[in-house]
Amino acid sequence: MNRFPRPSGLITLLTDFGERDTYVGQMKAVILSLAPQVRLVDLTHAVPPQDILEGSFQLATAWRVFPPGTVHVAVVDPGVGTARRALACLAGEQYFVLPDNGVGTLVFRETPPHMVVALDRPQFFRHPVSRTFHGRDIFAPVAAHLASGTDLALLGTPIAPSEIVQLSLTPVVRTPERVQGPLLSIDHFGNCRTLIRPEDIPFAYETALVRCGSVVIHGIHTTYGDVKPGSPLALFGSHGGLEIAIRNGNAAHELGLRRGDLVEITSA
Amino acid sequence: MNRFPRPSGLITLLTDFGERDTYVGQMKAVILSLAPQVRLVDLTHAVPPQDILEGSFQLATAWRVFPPGTVHVAVVDPGVGTARRALACLAGEQYFVLPDNGVGTLVFRETPPHMVVALDRPQFFRHPVSRTFHGRDIFAPVAAHLASGTDLALLGTPIAPSEIVQLSLTPVVRTPERVQGPLLSIDHFGNCRTLIRPEDIPFAYETALVRCGSVVIHGIHTTYGDVKPGSPLALFGSHGGLEIAIRNGNAAHELGLRRGDLVEITSA
Amino acid sequence: MNRFPRPSGLITLLTDFGERDTYVGQMKAVILSLAPQVRLVDLTHAVPPQDILEGSFQLATAWRVFPPGTVHVAVVDPGVGTARRALACLAGEQYFVLPDNGVGTLVFRETPPHMVVALDRPQFFRHPVSRTFHGRDIFAPVAAHLASGTDLALLGTPIAPSEIVQLSLTPVVRTPERVQGPLLSIDHFGNCRTLIRPEDIPFAYETALVRCGSVVIHGIHTTYGDVKPGSPLALFGSHGGLEIAIRNGNAAHELGLRRGDLVEITSA
Repeated sequence: MNRFPRPSGLITLLTDFGERDTYVGQMKAVILSLAPQVRLVDLTHAVPPQDILEGSFQLATAWRVFPPGTVHVAVVDPGVGTARRALACLAGEQYFVLPDNGVGTLVFRETPPHMVVALDRPQFFRHPVSRTFHGRDIFAPVAAHLASGTDLALLGTPIAPSEIVQLSLTPVVRTPERVQGPLLSIDHFGNCRTLIRPEDIPFAYETALVRCGSVVIHGIHTTYGDVKPGSPLALFGSHGGLEIAIRNGNAAHELGLRRGDLVEITSA
Repeated sequence: MNRFPRPSGLITLLTDFGERDTYVGQMKAVILSLAPQVRLVDLTHAVPPQDILEGSFQLATAWRVFPPGTVHVAVVDPGVGTARRALACLAGEQYFVLPDNGVGTLVFRETPPHMVVALDRPQFFRHPVSRTFHGRDIFAPVAAHLASGTDLALLGTPIAPSEIVQLSLTPVVRTPERVQGPLLSIDHFGNCRTLIRPEDIPFAYETALVRCGSVVIHGIHTTYGDVKPGSPLALFGSHGGLEIAIRNGNAAHELGLRRGDLVEITSA
Repeated sequence: MNRFPRPSGLITLLTDFGERDTYVGQMKAVILSLAPQVRLVDLTHAVPPQDILEGSFQLATAWRVFPPGTVHVAVVDPGVGTARRALACLAGEQYFVLPDNGVGTLVFRETPPHMVVALDRPQFFRHPVSRTFHGRDIFAPVAAHLASGTDLALLGTPIAPSEIVQLSLTPVVRTPERVQGPLLSIDHFGNCRTLIRPEDIPFAYETALVRCGSVVIHGIHTTYGDVKPGSPLALFGSHGGLEIAIRNGNAAHELGLRRGDLVEITSA
């Protein structure tokens, strides 16, 4: 019996490459040359340059929606061409192909990797391997091999999951009276997202006081339409964590909130 | 004999989700999990947040180019999670899956729906259904079912096409001496687009005077190259309506035109 | 025996259409209607409007990564609707479908076309052919026919490769003491890219002095990690030419470099 989930035929791509250049297209060229049958899904290419934390957050919002055996390629890679390792991981019945710099952190907190290999077998790379574009020359071809059924164990040398690089994040702190955690990511609509989960809230949603800077919001609601247009609200967003939003508005701009700001929840 | 067109195998996506987050990727994950054979085409994800009119305009520019049986998913959905209905419609031999908020208005003016169902059958949804992301949990899976051959009539409760929400728009007004209509949408090149059609113009194109604010343009041309680089012109754009453009320039910026401005055409 | 490479099944798209409108989606509708089996890869749609040189540069960064028989559609087309010709070309075992305005220049300098036809056979077009959107009505359907196996020779009237329009560019000038060439393109990361190739440098990389405006960089390195974060460096980028970059920074913004600036390399 195979230890590994059968490929779903899907490969996702997440990068900080932007939409202006052909870098993403070149990765797709490599993948489709090796695995013409796979289906590609772009998660985002608008991660700010070298912003590993935002890359990690975005990957964590999406991976669970994909079927087992999906291959996720995440290339936010300021250390390209240095000694940083390249990895392929099995976690939560899905595959993750990424640099060993913490970009998998938020996924692996939800679902620790069962198996990790360091990508050190050039027969699975595109040649010549450039020193500036491992997305094309290492991560893309390895993803294509995984999606074509190559066993994860063949792709590199196993390493202990505990040895991979993890980002150190401001934690969510919970006491019976108070929950606190940082705004980690602001989406296109200006919704300000934390990792505070429903199970972190030890009191009734109606009595919650959500504070962030000078903003104070009463109650935790369930959808934007629960308040009047233009009003701020706190709710659990589709990523699973608490977010601060404005119905039909942009909470980040209008409330002056920024990544890293601390959100505090108490009971009124 | 089936009343419904056979699926073309194509699903299009139009949203106001932007390119920064994984929301579109999550919709694709749901669709490709249910219907791995379909081909996905992004129409645009750059509709300004909650701008139903622009979403409606963009959808109307594109749907006719697709083959019969294509499924168009349009998610500009400020009322997500409220009592607003979700719809699947058959119109012009194509399917439209969208919130009941008017985003189909400009398509349905061209081709009134033959059949509309309210999406009220949870067996066709992704579960748990969130209260903030029906694009992923309702519209995407219903589109996948349609594209896989599920009958429209099975997907929900029929409602009268006359009951669906329509946007109320500033109309195109036509008299023998004068045609007037609003600038509805400005494209990436700065071309300013109206819904004034060739058949609305009751006089010879050469004698037309096109006015918008302080801009006066003589004649209606047939392509940008009919005037010198940098010159403004009026012509019928690929969306079928009159547009004001500048050859190799940006008419909206350079002429100071804005959505909602009225365009008036008279005979010189 | 067929003179032409067998289609790879891939069609790439490069335009200046932006992401805001449905223009790219309409091209895909036409292609997938005619050739449902092809796979589409977006190279970029963010070429600045009418910027043929940038379109040419971007196309040249990507085409080599694709397999033989790929069809590349490049639509940066300020002359749409005028007498400018539309072309299909075979070069480097790949196909290029584009307006005859120089957008193929940088590809064809690397690999001169073997065969060029002028697209003058309406049976391969979408009808009615608009005068403003040949991307949809001429280039897309011709690409679909090529990708479906139609012989290039059938698609139009042969013309001499020497007759097609070429951009005239500031050349790379090389003497034994000095190499000079322009910054042609700035990527999403702010990397400033030239067409100066490794074989153009007549002295050891360690002794090179790279100057651009008031910027002076010592040595040519091999990857960003060779210098400290925040430091400028010169290296050969993944496009094959010399680029000026800042590790984990944006060289164009921070050093004030612009397209057209001259880069000069001497030996220290």
